[in-house]
Amino acid sequence: MIRGLKISTPFPHGGKLVDRVVTNPVKGRKMAKHTDAVFDIKPTLYQGVPVRNVYREIMSTCYGFFSPVEGSMTKAEVDRILKERRLLSNWVFPYPLVFDVSDEDYKKLGVREGDSLLLRAKGKPFAILDIDEVWRIDNTEELATKTFGTVEGNPEVVREPFDEKMPGWVIYKSLNPVVLAGKYTIINEPKLLPPFDRFWYPPKKSREEYEKRGWRTVINHQTRNVPHVGHEMLMKNAAYTGDIEPCHGIQVNAIIGVKRPGDYPDEAIIEGHEAVNLGGYINPKRHLVTITLWDMRYGNPLESMLHGIIRQNMGCTHHMFGRDHAAVGKYYDMYATQILWGKGIPSFGFPAPITDVPYGLQIRPQNMAEFWYCPKCGEIAYSANCAHDKEKQKFSGSFIRGMVAEGVFPPGVIFRPEVYKVILKWWKKFNYPFCNPKYVKEKEKILEIDLPDMKI
Amino acid sequence: MIRGLKISTPFPHGGKLVDRVVTNPVKGRKMAKHTDAVFDIKPTLYQGVPVRNVYREIMSTCYGFFSPVEGSMTKAEVDRILKERRLLSNWVFPYPLVFDVSDEDYKKLGVREGDSLLLRAKGKPFAILDIDEVWRIDNTEELATKTFGTVEGNPEVVREPFDEKMPGWVIYKSLNPVVLAGKYTIINEPKLLPPFDRFWYPPKKSREEYEKRGWRTVINHQTRNVPHVGHEMLMKNAAYTGDIEPCHGIQVNAIIGVKRPGDYPDEAIIEGHEAVNLGGYINPKRHLVTITLWDMRYGNPLESMLHGIIRQNMGCTHHMFGRDHAAVGKYYDMYATQILWGKGIPSFGFPAPITDVPYGLQIRPQNMAEFWYCPKCGEIAYSANCAHDKEKQKFSGSFIRGMVAEGVFPPGVIFRPEVYKVILKWWKKFNYPFCNPKYVKEKEKILEIDLPDMKI
Repeated sequence: MIRGLKISTPFPHGGKLVDRVVTNPVKGRKMAKHTDAVFDIKPTLYQGVPVRNVYREIMSTCYGFFSPVEGSMTKAEVDRILKERRLLSNWVFPYPLVFDVSDEDYKKLGVREGDSLLLRAKGKPFAILDIDEVWRIDNTEELATKTFGTVEGNPEVVREPFDEKMPGWVIYKSLNPVVLAGKYTIINEPKLLPPFDRFWYPPKKSREEYEKRGWRTVINHQTRNVPHVGHEMLMKNAAYTGDIEPCHGIQVNAIIGVKRPGDYPDEAIIEGHEAVNLGGYINPKRHLVTITLWDMRYGNPLESMLHGIIRQNMGCTHHMFGRDHAAVGKYYDMYATQILWGKGIPSFGFPAPITDVPYGLQIRPQNMAEFWYCPKCGEIAYSANCAHDKEKQKFSGSFIRGMVAEGVFPPGVIFRPEVYKVILKWWKKFNYPFCNPKYVKEKEKILEIDLPDMKI
Repeated sequence: MIRGLKISTPFPHGGKLVDRVVTNPVKGRKMAKHTDAVFDIKPTLYQGVPVRNVYREIMSTCYGFFSPVEGSMTKAEVDRILKERRLLSNWVFPYPLVFDVSDEDYKKLGVREGDSLLLRAKGKPFAILDIDEVWRIDNTEELATKTFGTVEGNPEVVREPFDEKMPGWVIYKSLNPVVLAGKYTIINEPKLLPPFDRFWYPPKKSREEYEKRGWRTVINHQTRNVPHVGHEMLMKNAAYTGDIEPCHGIQVNAIIGVKRPGDYPDEAIIEGHEAVNLGGYINPKRHLVTITLWDMRYGNPLESMLHGIIRQNMGCTHHMFGRDHAAVGKYYDMYATQILWGKGIPSFGFPAPITDVPYGLQIRPQNMAEFWYCPKCGEIAYSANCAHDKEKQKFSGSFIRGMVAEGVFPPGVIFRPEVYKVILKWWKKFNYPFCNPKYVKEKEKILEIDLPDMKI
């Protein structure tokens, strides 16, 4: 006898959703008043270009996306993560997350352990950092390398040494040397700007939404792309997993943050996914497009662990993973993520799948192989099914981007017309279908939020 | 922590595969010699037409498809099945299975408890029945009704009283009154006739085949149809279930037995499924077409329980179930099977899903909703996804049969050309694309086997 094949909503990673957002402005103002110094959040730059904005980490932490993480990490926590990919509380976690300032700023601030710092965004009070520890990063390049691994140290999955073409490595290399460790609290609740506002489902809200919709099983699709038909098929097909029936819900969770040139703008990505359900290709009743604020590290298996944490916290039961998940270049094995979820990566501290280790994850992987277009099958075919080796036509992201850049209206087999119209809409607005340095800089000024006035 | 999301091959129902086939002809001949009487197997007739052939039950029993059942059932076993749908050993089982003879034949045979009976098929020694008990069915119509249920007694799933339009009810109503209960042993191993021979994978062999192919997870598709593209899509899509990745194997298991007029001939069914993999629509490496000998009872949820038992014995981890599973007419709720597997049917003895009760099944259901053709999606769309209510075109079996009967070459969206060619091939052979009374009678003479000569 097997007891109960039905899967239910996983508990949050670490057992409890972090909620560090003060929604009462009177209380928030009072807390802001009792801080010891003020600091204006700035993007992290590399060669003058924004590569990260800690404001996104503060948002995702305080709204519980990264539960059980509550703030900027102490040295001991970062050391344990780099050694075992675990928090001091034992729960698995892939990346160091820190609030870093320059020596110059640190001197100016004059803060120390026990002090609290008022953080401003867009010139307005935003959050508080209660400083538990001040520590130094001796060598950011070393930190960056330790974060992502080496060919010798992580032979299961690392194929090439990381360098400055890897955005995540650049983010860690560009950190300021002084870390102020401690918990964040948002004291002035931001308002998401359109179109981001209608996709904002922090974990507490997403869990409520699933319950309202009667979704017991929900599979997540990670995205940083406007969905072509291949993506749509991946979503639809991976969603047949579930337990005794296909997953009730399909959630798209788009990672919103600093872009690379050539990426689609975030606005086109989320509205493009929405167009899939507005167009009726995936019934809106079964489909929910959401966002998480995060500057992608492109750490393939490590990033997939963070994705698992975020989506488990949001209440998903399943997560689809394809080839080259959250990857850039050829640093990692193209199946590194599936290795982590399928058998584990001992050199990262996981001798078993990440769901099967103590203090591991509960969300279940659906590891998918490839899709291609097959004119003989007359469909976007799954590689395990279609045996038409001569006829198959692989999807090429760069080919599709090239087609878009040249203004060719793509055939229905590549983009649904409703989705392509979204690309055109934002192309008009930004004068180009893809992100350029101007878009990137502009975005780090506007961010994705507005803040209410708050006089201190 | 969850320990192990990976699913492994289930053990046979009841714990052990039944194997009652004597493969050594010398031993078989010796056993045949020591029998007390001889009986020539005959089809069960209803109004002169064959509706069942017990030879198929003997084959499926002795080769382990029905494990742990070993033969014709005693009265106590039949009573318990009708009351609780369990064998005396507690394992769940849906149907009475008996070896029945007429009063006249019983008198002629002159056998009693403790005797053994040599059964001949096609005039040759085939099997032995070791008689443990002789009992009488008082009222076969009552037995038939008790087997399938009533509107009052089984309100969760029975919608209309059973009658002579229901083939399973007719089978039980047509039984002879004397039951010879006891174990079967095949003592002269039959040779399956072409084209059935290459689809013959009894449980032991199918399990070996999966292992050879490296299939840890296998989903079964039940069929009694030449597959149209909707069936193909059901198979491909249901197969995305599995555990941490889509099912490794897709098994088609065709029920081969007495046909109803209007059915496709068995030969076209199995070669039609094979054409799906030979045509490359489902890679032959992932696809296995197999058969089970059984005269369908069309008992919807009860039949699905038998299907679960057969395919669990074959080694499958999953079984797909659609609407109106193994149904005819409107006797049962169209979702009766999914009710059995999703929450249980208390009136049949199952207050919980059939996988969650003691001595229940291990094979996991994948309960699927509907598929239809949607010209807007440009695909066979799943009802939970496609929201194009105006455009959708439902598959109609009778429409498709009508098209075939009129010799219209159906569009690619209905039949793959390779599959349609199989229909044509057998149409030529049988002079009609569907089964007629002549085919049905002819088949009960030839059966699906040849038997070696065996002199007693």
